[in-house]
Amino acid sequence: MVQLRVGLAQVNVTVGDLAGNADVIVRWVRRGAEAGAHLLVFPEMALTGYPIEDLALRESFAEASKAALVRLAGRLADAGCGEVACCVGYLDLDGQGARDAAAVLYRGEVVARQFKHHLPNYGVFDERRHFTAGAGLAVLTIRGVEVGMVICEDIWQDGGPVTELGRIGVDLVVSPNASPYERKKDDVRLELVAKRAREAGAPLLYANLVGGQDELVFDGDSIVVAADGTLLARAPQFVEHLLLVDLDLPGGAPRGEPSEFTVTRRTLSAEPVPGYPPEYPRNIAEPLSDEAEEWAALVTCLRDYVHKNGFRSVVLGLSGGIDSAVCAALAVDALGADAVYGVSMPSVYSSEHSRSDAAELARRTGVHYEVQPIETMVAAFVGQLGLTGLAEENVQARCRGMTLMGLSNQHGHLVLATGNKTELAVGYSTIYGDAVGGFAPIKDVLKTRVWELARWRNAAAEWRGETPPIPESSISKPPSAELRPGQLDTDSLPDYKLLDDVLDDYVEGDRGYEDLLAAGFEPELVQRVLRMVDRAEFKRRQYPPGTKITFKAFGRDRRLPITNAWREGQDGTVPETT
Amino acid sequence: MVQLRVGLAQVNVTVGDLAGNADVIVRWVRRGAEAGAHLLVFPEMALTGYPIEDLALRESFAEASKAALVRLAGRLADAGCGEVACCVGYLDLDGQGARDAAAVLYRGEVVARQFKHHLPNYGVFDERRHFTAGAGLAVLTIRGVEVGMVICEDIWQDGGPVTELGRIGVDLVVSPNASPYERKKDDVRLELVAKRAREAGAPLLYANLVGGQDELVFDGDSIVVAADGTLLARAPQFVEHLLLVDLDLPGGAPRGEPSEFTVTRRTLSAEPVPGYPPEYPRNIAEPLSDEAEEWAALVTCLRDYVHKNGFRSVVLGLSGGIDSAVCAALAVDALGADAVYGVSMPSVYSSEHSRSDAAELARRTGVHYEVQPIETMVAAFVGQLGLTGLAEENVQARCRGMTLMGLSNQHGHLVLATGNKTELAVGYSTIYGDAVGGFAPIKDVLKTRVWELARWRNAAAEWRGETPPIPESSISKPPSAELRPGQLDTDSLPDYKLLDDVLDDYVEGDRGYEDLLAAGFEPELVQRVLRMVDRAEFKRRQYPPGTKITFKAFGRDRRLPITNAWREGQDGTVPETT
Repeated sequence: MVQLRVGLAQVNVTVGDLAGNADVIVRWVRRGAEAGAHLLVFPEMALTGYPIEDLALRESFAEASKAALVRLAGRLADAGCGEVACCVGYLDLDGQGARDAAAVLYRGEVVARQFKHHLPNYGVFDERRHFTAGAGLAVLTIRGVEVGMVICEDIWQDGGPVTELGRIGVDLVVSPNASPYERKKDDVRLELVAKRAREAGAPLLYANLVGGQDELVFDGDSIVVAADGTLLARAPQFVEHLLLVDLDLPGGAPRGEPSEFTVTRRTLSAEPVPGYPPEYPRNIAEPLSDEAEEWAALVTCLRDYVHKNGFRSVVLGLSGGIDSAVCAALAVDALGADAVYGVSMPSVYSSEHSRSDAAELARRTGVHYEVQPIETMVAAFVGQLGLTGLAEENVQARCRGMTLMGLSNQHGHLVLATGNKTELAVGYSTIYGDAVGGFAPIKDVLKTRVWELARWRNAAAEWRGETPPIPESSISKPPSAELRPGQLDTDSLPDYKLLDDVLDDYVEGDRGYEDLLAAGFEPELVQRVLRMVDRAEFKRRQYPPGTKITFKAFGRDRRLPITNAWREGQDGTVPETT
Repeated sequence: MVQLRVGLAQVNVTVGDLAGNADVIVRWVRRGAEAGAHLLVFPEMALTGYPIEDLALRESFAEASKAALVRLAGRLADAGCGEVACCVGYLDLDGQGARDAAAVLYRGEVVARQFKHHLPNYGVFDERRHFTAGAGLAVLTIRGVEVGMVICEDIWQDGGPVTELGRIGVDLVVSPNASPYERKKDDVRLELVAKRAREAGAPLLYANLVGGQDELVFDGDSIVVAADGTLLARAPQFVEHLLLVDLDLPGGAPRGEPSEFTVTRRTLSAEPVPGYPPEYPRNIAEPLSDEAEEWAALVTCLRDYVHKNGFRSVVLGLSGGIDSAVCAALAVDALGADAVYGVSMPSVYSSEHSRSDAAELARRTGVHYEVQPIETMVAAFVGQLGLTGLAEENVQARCRGMTLMGLSNQHGHLVLATGNKTELAVGYSTIYGDAVGGFAPIKDVLKTRVWELARWRNAAAEWRGETPPIPESSISKPPSAELRPGQLDTDSLPDYKLLDDVLDDYVEGDRGYEDLLAAGFEPELVQRVLRMVDRAEFKRRQYPPGTKITFKAFGRDRRLPITNAWREGQDGTVPETT
């Protein structure tokens, strides 16, 4: 048996910040070196951040990434960490194009490069636009251990390079990843990693990014499994972490087995580590509950969007309703109450409870709070332009949006848009009104889930002996936009439970009309909801970014034309009359 | 020699409108049949419209497309057009996935299917996300002529199916296309088509879409070239057209030559057409000048966006400046003056000439015109919220945006955003202010080009003996946002000529810092401009769609992260201080 102390560095880096990310990597390598690690694995494209989108096509950036990698190798050696083999993801560029790559740094040099084979081009991914696929395999001998590398999607595809590593034989597989969070993805991930370890016939080190990047959030959840698929170690979600494990490996994997791939072999150190007493045998963090996980995803992505874009504070409208209350609670958890500015903006149609619930939320959470009535502003527009009906309703929402933007411009806060996924789906929002904002924290949370998360967050506070942040009345009262007297959401929309069920099938499931009827929904309801969803595409295009937590978020996940005459249930036999 | 009368139907269809598009196809086939055509070619995905984006992933839509195709074949036969072989683009779906396909309809049946081999996944294209590539070739005998088919990108790639058709031998190649307009692309296209015809050793029929679809506009420019590459016929740009040509073909192409591809052969009619006197020997439309072509692209895309989305009229702010003047002139050319509503919205900082130039524009073009001063509205916000400086400037722009949206909601007009590409690039616009709109006609036109197009449009009017639409003073005066006393654009921005030159290299050329210095720009200018461009990404994300006319438009052409610490010229050696 051969021993090896490995570390998975689950780090939070920033897209494009080559110098800053190199600093992060150096910091974590130092920790790993101090802890006696022999091999450290960083996530996919840790040096550049991920996803870099069309920066991958910019030659100057690719060259800077390659240069930063070489400098990093030197810095690590200068810092006395040269003996630790470090696998670091970065952007490469060669005669065939840009590469999603991982390199091994050792004794001040870049000693191996592995390119990603499988380039995902579905969902939020556009990697065939950005990268050229790799076809080779780099296998290194590190302390007498044969180590192969595979990058992210390479383990999601059957018959990929992991299978080949299993065929030619290695002692250990390392895998840098940038796998975005989605509800319940952690369960899938562990199963998959276990399966690939069995295929490789070797332990697998799965290192994942953590932190937010625009609409994506990475949950970490780095994993070490044994050759038989047994879970050996698991990192906590949504925090930076160095997951250390002492491995006992059989060693003696064959060397020089022929392969369909070009295999580049290099020996860094043939001599195994002298026997030592293991200190990190098992270290398994408990995965979060579904609600805790979603909440942490929303908090992390919001925090990183604010900070990575140079903001220190946020401002949002507090209507007394559930959506703004949940956004405020998220912002407080992300940034601290002192960085959150709540504004109540009552109109003549605002009820007494909406004002008192907003004030109560501010009291409970401790956010800054001010009241800015909008009557004067609304009157100026409505009077001069002679607006009535929907036009008048929209002016109210827009005066609120303008007020928030005014305070943002004056004081430097980022504006949060408080709309939920249900509203965004059916277009139940005012463009340039409540849709105003730099970031939309609950953009991918259906209304019914907003209520569930609110209840969960309050219960979590109670369990910890803290004041629940969200007033009970904001959770229990019937939702209303309060843009005309006595208005309720149910005047314009189906019951939220039913609506969210249809949306789940139509948006996440991409199911057609017949399929939705087969699922038991009434034809009239289906036609009504689908019509609303299809017609709101133009609003979604101008909506701010927000954290993706579902399988299919609005945004890069679901790319539909604005100009689109297709109506489900009409299958082209009957021309639509508009 | 074998004779054949062919027609290229350059049609304007609507994405998703299967029934409506089938009607369009039937109408043009009738015309072709009346003109005695034996073979008609429609553009790529003519039945579904193009690009359908993620509709390609919806099974219900793909099935509806297939069913609509079968019905279309029946309708054509019922209409007495069954003897005309019609090549029609549509969406197919089989066990391997969705297909960008073309079918031949003949005597009431679908007699052949050809799938696209090469799926573009760059620029505005995401076809590897949407389609599975084809690998076979369909070859038909039509009136004794061997006909092969290749779809759009298949002729842009060397060594594609055209080369194989040349090897196995055909008498004629038909090519359905949906090739979006870009400046000067027509020159490239003709050369390419000629080259492929020579490769195939047969005449090539290049049928292209016409009309607008969200940010893309198709210019038609359908082409027929002889086997030696000689141009035989060319359709006019930006109009629906049936391009008819009488061909003399050698005939007698080999049948049954072995191929790497699976070749599906079918004989529709072995008997050549009896000799007839040709009526359509040559028919070559003169391509438009660069300015005329760009203007027509902007007009066409605006018109189609408005009409295909169910609007009949537009409203826009008239500031007296060049951008709003050009947008108004485009709208008048697209929709007629009676469908255009101009609003002058003076503030306390508006100069006398901005009011008089706006009124003069309205007088010259005949658009509806009203004046809505914004003082009262601005005072309501500035007074209550205590806004100063930039916050106060932005309120003015936002009160104008709200005024236009109020009029839009009240009267049903689509709002036009009048910003140009230079402003959008450097973020010289107010989000939720002048950026408000459903469509942005000159979003992809650099400021210097806006002036050139204005001059060209005025000259064209003079040449036709009409009143030039744009007041000379709007063209010649120094540009100003008029958000504070005596403000000029040059207070905040470099000279527009220089700025546009940098933008051209940085945005269209994707050139890095060193490259820009090598091109002769001053380091300080480059850093200043690039910083502005990089920091404005969040504004661009919420900007309305607008016509793409350049090689790289903001939008789907250029996909950069919002959270992005990369700064050109800093190459990661120096951490940026913000």
